[in-house]
Amino acid sequence: MTSQIPEVVILRLPLYLRILTLLEEENAGVVSSQELGARLQMTPAQIRKDLSYFGKFGKQGKGYNVRLLLGELRQILGVNREWHMAIIGVGRLGKAILDYGMLTPRGFKIVAAFDIDPQQTGKKVGRVVIQDLAELANTVKNRGIDIGIVAVPPSQAQQAIDCLVGCGIKAILNYAPVAPRVPKDVRIQEVDPVLALQTMTYHLKSLGSP
Amino acid sequence: MTSQIPEVVILRLPLYLRILTLLEEENAGVVSSQELGARLQMTPAQIRKDLSYFGKFGKQGKGYNVRLLLGELRQILGVNREWHMAIIGVGRLGKAILDYGMLTPRGFKIVAAFDIDPQQTGKKVGRVVIQDLAELANTVKNRGIDIGIVAVPPSQAQQAIDCLVGCGIKAILNYAPVAPRVPKDVRIQEVDPVLALQTMTYHLKSLGSP
Repeated sequence: MTSQIPEVVILRLPLYLRILTLLEEENAGVVSSQELGARLQMTPAQIRKDLSYFGKFGKQGKGYNVRLLLGELRQILGVNREWHMAIIGVGRLGKAILDYGMLTPRGFKIVAAFDIDPQQTGKKVGRVVIQDLAELANTVKNRGIDIGIVAVPPSQAQQAIDCLVGCGIKAILNYAPVAPRVPKDVRIQEVDPVLALQTMTYHLKSLGSP
Repeated sequence: MTSQIPEVVILRLPLYLRILTLLEEENAGVVSSQELGARLQMTPAQIRKDLSYFGKFGKQGKGYNVRLLLGELRQILGVNREWHMAIIGVGRLGKAILDYGMLTPRGFKIVAAFDIDPQQTGKKVGRVVIQDLAELANTVKNRGIDIGIVAVPPSQAQQAIDCLVGCGIKAILNYAPVAPRVPKDVRIQEVDPVLALQTMTYHLKSLGSP
């Protein structure tokens, strides 16, 4: 069944998860597709259609049970567990990512850090000791690492990605502003604020701003 | 014409821009839809269809002129100029964003920074002096600021966004992991690595990883 879910719907599921987490914190028992639509800036019909891919959660006229829907979404997205991640590149950007407090509480823990600079090796950033890249394969295996984070300069990004792929990593979060190549069975997601900015300037420029 | 471009195509244009910028740096004169497809992990047919929304760039069998296509894409996306941005929140995350060297060279310059903590006001981060939030409206006007960046804790995010909207800002880059509300004429883009991670765990979990 899950193979039939359109990719565009999958991309929206984390947004549902986030709003439902907020609603649970607000002790909301049920939520209507109207309310979800208002909070997510989508139509209620779109919400109902998206959620219908995952079975019957809502009762006609009664709305969705927040706790049940949240549990189901967590399972569908595979976030009802902790994922271990390794970061490559512990420069300014890498340190900021290691320092960013919003990953571990949400189930994504950076358990290992790597750098090609021998002067960095052995140093500690937070709770993680920086290792030589040569130790990546062993650490991936021993620490059960599923996800790689790339925070190296653009010129080193493809090499870092190839290292992760060579170690069997199937999911990569890439902060380097490059267009990397990965095999078909490897997922890669870009975190590049400039890409996000450029989709907005497309719309901004037609507003006749200076 | 531009109003007919599907949003999903607009979201891909920055990826085209990025790969073409790399190709120009490599002194490539022309590029085929096959090559673009291989670098972007898309089919050549999809590439040709996307680019056909913007007129006839490619010559049958000759490929696309990199320089011409790049110039056109820059114009379409509105990035053939410098955009001024203001950041709200100069904590750990805000400082990392101000410190991130990849924005200004790509046409997005943070020219002002704001914080509600009076102890921060007057301090300098890089070239920018932190201002009191009360000065936002004036600064937006005087510095020609088009884009706001929100880097405050989640609990303060909606308030920061409301401030920006109240000052006439129509494009917001939001780093706070919340589901903010904005008027229909305001664009907001989220930079939340956890959203990107969660779309990958959906696929990872079916690989039978531990």
